[in-house]
Amino acid sequence: MIIVLKSGTPEVEVQRIADEMKDWGLTPEKIVGTNNIVIGLVGDTQSFDTDQVQDVSHWVDKVLRVSKPFKRVSREFRHGEPSVIEIPTPNGTVTIGETCPIVMVAGPCSVENQEMIVDTAQRVKAAGAAFLRGGAYKPRTSPYAFQGHGESALELLAEARRVSGLGIITEVMDTADLDRLAEVADVVQIGARNMQNFALLKQVGAQSKPVLLKRGMAATLEEWLMAAEYILAAGNPNVILCERGIRTFDRQYTRNTLDLSVIPVLRSLTHLPIMIDPSHGTGWASLVPSMAKAAIAAGTDALMIEVHPNPTKALSDGPQSLTPDQFTQLTQDLATVGEAIGRWPATYSPVA
Amino acid sequence: MIIVLKSGTPEVEVQRIADEMKDWGLTPEKIVGTNNIVIGLVGDTQSFDTDQVQDVSHWVDKVLRVSKPFKRVSREFRHGEPSVIEIPTPNGTVTIGETCPIVMVAGPCSVENQEMIVDTAQRVKAAGAAFLRGGAYKPRTSPYAFQGHGESALELLAEARRVSGLGIITEVMDTADLDRLAEVADVVQIGARNMQNFALLKQVGAQSKPVLLKRGMAATLEEWLMAAEYILAAGNPNVILCERGIRTFDRQYTRNTLDLSVIPVLRSLTHLPIMIDPSHGTGWASLVPSMAKAAIAAGTDALMIEVHPNPTKALSDGPQSLTPDQFTQLTQDLATVGEAIGRWPATYSPVA
Amino acid sequence: MIIVLKSGTPEVEVQRIADEMKDWGLTPEKIVGTNNIVIGLVGDTQSFDTDQVQDVSHWVDKVLRVSKPFKRVSREFRHGEPSVIEIPTPNGTVTIGETCPIVMVAGPCSVENQEMIVDTAQRVKAAGAAFLRGGAYKPRTSPYAFQGHGESALELLAEARRVSGLGIITEVMDTADLDRLAEVADVVQIGARNMQNFALLKQVGAQSKPVLLKRGMAATLEEWLMAAEYILAAGNPNVILCERGIRTFDRQYTRNTLDLSVIPVLRSLTHLPIMIDPSHGTGWASLVPSMAKAAIAAGTDALMIEVHPNPTKALSDGPQSLTPDQFTQLTQDLATVGEAIGRWPATYSPVA
Amino acid sequence: MIIVLKSGTPEVEVQRIADEMKDWGLTPEKIVGTNNIVIGLVGDTQSFDTDQVQDVSHWVDKVLRVSKPFKRVSREFRHGEPSVIEIPTPNGTVTIGETCPIVMVAGPCSVENQEMIVDTAQRVKAAGAAFLRGGAYKPRTSPYAFQGHGESALELLAEARRVSGLGIITEVMDTADLDRLAEVADVVQIGARNMQNFALLKQVGAQSKPVLLKRGMAATLEEWLMAAEYILAAGNPNVILCERGIRTFDRQYTRNTLDLSVIPVLRSLTHLPIMIDPSHGTGWASLVPSMAKAAIAAGTDALMIEVHPNPTKALSDGPQSLTPDQFTQLTQDLATVGEAIGRWPATYSPVA
Repeated sequence: MIIVLKSGTPEVEVQRIADEMKDWGLTPEKIVGTNNIVIGLVGDTQSFDTDQVQDVSHWVDKVLRVSKPFKRVSREFRHGEPSVIEIPTPNGTVTIGETCPIVMVAGPCSVENQEMIVDTAQRVKAAGAAFLRGGAYKPRTSPYAFQGHGESALELLAEARRVSGLGIITEVMDTADLDRLAEVADVVQIGARNMQNFALLKQVGAQSKPVLLKRGMAATLEEWLMAAEYILAAGNPNVILCERGIRTFDRQYTRNTLDLSVIPVLRSLTHLPIMIDPSHGTGWASLVPSMAKAAIAAGTDALMIEVHPNPTKALSDGPQSLTPDQFTQLTQDLATVGEAIGRWPATYSPVA
Repeated sequence: MIIVLKSGTPEVEVQRIADEMKDWGLTPEKIVGTNNIVIGLVGDTQSFDTDQVQDVSHWVDKVLRVSKPFKRVSREFRHGEPSVIEIPTPNGTVTIGETCPIVMVAGPCSVENQEMIVDTAQRVKAAGAAFLRGGAYKPRTSPYAFQGHGESALELLAEARRVSGLGIITEVMDTADLDRLAEVADVVQIGARNMQNFALLKQVGAQSKPVLLKRGMAATLEEWLMAAEYILAAGNPNVILCERGIRTFDRQYTRNTLDLSVIPVLRSLTHLPIMIDPSHGTGWASLVPSMAKAAIAAGTDALMIEVHPNPTKALSDGPQSLTPDQFTQLTQDLATVGEAIGRWPATYSPVA
Repeated sequence: MIIVLKSGTPEVEVQRIADEMKDWGLTPEKIVGTNNIVIGLVGDTQSFDTDQVQDVSHWVDKVLRVSKPFKRVSREFRHGEPSVIEIPTPNGTVTIGETCPIVMVAGPCSVENQEMIVDTAQRVKAAGAAFLRGGAYKPRTSPYAFQGHGESALELLAEARRVSGLGIITEVMDTADLDRLAEVADVVQIGARNMQNFALLKQVGAQSKPVLLKRGMAATLEEWLMAAEYILAAGNPNVILCERGIRTFDRQYTRNTLDLSVIPVLRSLTHLPIMIDPSHGTGWASLVPSMAKAAIAAGTDALMIEVHPNPTKALSDGPQSLTPDQFTQLTQDLATVGEAIGRWPATYSPVA
Repeated sequence: MIIVLKSGTPEVEVQRIADEMKDWGLTPEKIVGTNNIVIGLVGDTQSFDTDQVQDVSHWVDKVLRVSKPFKRVSREFRHGEPSVIEIPTPNGTVTIGETCPIVMVAGPCSVENQEMIVDTAQRVKAAGAAFLRGGAYKPRTSPYAFQGHGESALELLAEARRVSGLGIITEVMDTADLDRLAEVADVVQIGARNMQNFALLKQVGAQSKPVLLKRGMAATLEEWLMAAEYILAAGNPNVILCERGIRTFDRQYTRNTLDLSVIPVLRSLTHLPIMIDPSHGTGWASLVPSMAKAAIAAGTDALMIEVHPNPTKALSDGPQSLTPDQFTQLTQDLATVGEAIGRWPATYSPVA
């Protein structure tokens, strides 16, 4: 950590600050610049907040953290090795990670009835998906909008899982629902709006199912990684980071701005696998194919695509859903790009 | 609701869409423009999502909602009358609303120990505060940062309440904690990160304590009002809206951008009282006085100010906290502006 | 255009507004909804501002434009046909557009001296670039930073053009410099900071060299297209739209957020060709390869990549520049993706 | 300046970087931390870009500037003394600055004809304005919208100046227009869209009329101050900084987000006077009074308010314009707040 002092800080105050830092167990090292004095703090600074240091004196101009605030999610924590998450499903174990073929997740925004969810599961499986997504509990801006069928939808997901053999990814919104939901889900999803619901993060960290952590719509990369750190710190190392678009000033032609640069940036910062959701990330079905192809070219480990048997009749998020036919077509287009970069499932050969 | 069709939509498709709208129980009215056809939908459109309508045909260019999506929080719902929320405290009932004098809320970010919280309560009460704020459960970006003393801090707040007579405002972060917390709190706070934690919104709506609803850091005004609508729809009409700064592109000299224009905008949209938090809204104690004065001049109903007996030693949010002495000085400065606009407690005379 | 009236608008006022619209030469059509009255305006509304209509009465709640504000740049203006821009260079005519192979533009941020610019030109040409970019006039945040060598740099660009045969793309910052600059440049660039320098837009529209129009860092798609409309309206149909990253709330690991969703969105809105600049779009050389590949997969028509023979010694924008060797390697990687989607120059076969 | 090296940087590379810094004329001082090595650079670092230093080695993690990038605009440059700008007008010299009474600027968006501009001038003068604003050249998003009457409008402004005695503030958009415009204008305005039109900044810096510099809609405070630095560096010390709202994610109820926190922040960073424009800052006339009062309470030195004799018929920006009657009423309301804080013209007594 580095303390930059305001120009004109009296020598006696510089000394007082240095002494206080020693009391905190840190070793202060002073650099006298042309205009400012800088104090470098050597020692275990991770347990101190920059805010606390800032407040030691009103002569402090700014406090800069030199080391990253996250630890268990950092690439260094695994000595540069990427995590590969192994997820058992009825159809066999699926692996997600930098060294694995790309994993497809598909399904409707919300589970509406048995026929639609089972039918969708079978269609997306045929097209190559390894996981079925579908909401039992739905975060909706309006209290008057369809909120998901809740517990009964979990049973329908279990049925779709039995019939199709696909793994199930579904969202938890309340600590009170986690146990029931984790009985059905192969991967537990934390939605964008709950990315900093710390009570929920701690709880999914204390159970054993892998967690899909969506990025909050105004979350910085560090906040996102710190949210993942909550889960790892609570004991669960299996977290997949899912970008789903951020909020920006222009929302006329896209609902969110899909930030694909997270792929190379996260790769350098963390060992965790990366998923991209171009359906929420753009909000419009017509934009999904281009962005899905781009995500693969940029190096994503997995894709999440909304598919609904009849988007016009969808109870939620219709405009961003593909039909099963469109999804089948899309996977063929994606295969071309995926094969070009050597990560398409059907043609993948692990690096020796 | 209005459907704008793409130019070139075939007549037969226009008819099909109109027929579908009739099936939904709506009356379609067609306007044929120079380039586009527009269909106005007459009837109860509130139960339909614009997304659903969008998806009726790929010839739909856009769907526009004419009426507001919120209902119980709207100004019209009370025929233009502002809500006045009456909150019993040991020192007497405090009223918050457009027709009342300005209410001051003050206290530390988190409750650290009995001495500090009781001392702060007495100091801010002496300076004119009606409520003590203080966190028992703290949302922190890092899992390694101080998370609040939890349940034991609730007892300290109860003690501070007994000693000072101030009402207590404290944040709930998990549905599992609400009952215990509501025993102590006179006002239950939903923090910015949980503004769209819908499980929590429903639950605070189902209990009787007034709710302070902070704006999410990237929440639009409509999303914020819809979050309040969740609470009213669940049965609790006593919601106070608190602006605490939004996230923008420049975070070098302020941590958030305090959006004071919400004051006149909310006034026209809703009957709910408005509070401004310039401490989180700027992130720096030195900016609090200017922004607090501005908030009063702009017409806020209440202010929330962070005060800590020793900001340098604060376990959280030190840089934005005033000392009790600074807070005492601030209230004197605020009085000047508050009196000028006729809303300062000591000099307030209700409009006949 | 559609006028939404506030609920409770008196009938006499509705009539007055309708009459005023008739005076403006428009035909008002009224739809009486459950809560609101809506007036559709039929006729040539393009010459009216929504603001003007808004101001006709304080009973107007909002005014919505049904048709797009842009005309000449719209896809419809060319009946759905994409523009192909033909640019003569010493090495032959280069074509840029949706039906053409991908065009590579490369070169340094600023022209530093003859050796570096000629050397870079030869290196990027060998790797497959069709154009050399390089700044003679540089927009710099600080007045104390290197501002470009100006007119003398134009001569160096002319020399690099002669030696390499590459076309030249360079930025104009002042109407006073345009004539001299257009003598050397094959494509005139308008930078992000000048996207709404309307005097400059009009002037580049009144000359004949193609224009590369970068997106302003907080420009909406409509504002960007309207800036292009200025150029077309002034007589120059040859505009290339270049995305270079937008400003968002997180700038810690990328300098801008590269918005690749503009590719499919612009494709549906406009006939103009699209270029992506992943160097400015991310700000870091290490992120350029992933984003360049993603841009190709998403369907871009051209790429602009910063290349500097010695980024460490660059007078501007070093951290985002590739070395010539890195650029050569990159084009090989891009070829794999470009071939997969059928748009790589060496292997491109036009659709019959 | 401080260089933070990546963890694991080899000792030989640390030495090489330190040596390179010596070659640049700087004195490197090394601090060896627990995880990272930090090099402090002592000497005249203002002429170096952080980018250049970043690029010295790929082992550099980040480069932090300790001192501010601006110099002449900084508060320190005048040893903490605020600038007071004296502007001669026919009615006498107007002074703008922290130690002066608040200055009111009012007038229409654009100059439409002689009657309206002269009439407006007389009305706003009667209400207490010291300056008339009015656009001769108008920046408009659409090439088809009214672009201002240009040179002939300058003559009308000159006439309004003669008749009313008010000073004139009008915007320059092109270097080619500056000379003519400066003959009429008492203050030359640089609009938000041209805040980083560096050719224009240099030119207004090289003439003698005071400059009103509006903040770009996505400009950071540092970028804004650096734009002012361009003007001061070119020789003109008389710059007024005008906040006019920034672009954020929510534009439904306000067109921009007025950032009043700039007032206390700029006060600590710069000696330059501050003006607030609540008309553009919100985009709606109904929001102007609250925000104008807030700006005064927060400490602004001047206000710019749009006033149009008949906003409904305005050729531009009608919805945000007050009528002269509304402006007269507003100044009375502002007086109450202005007097409370001791800065209202009629009642101002300079601090002894």
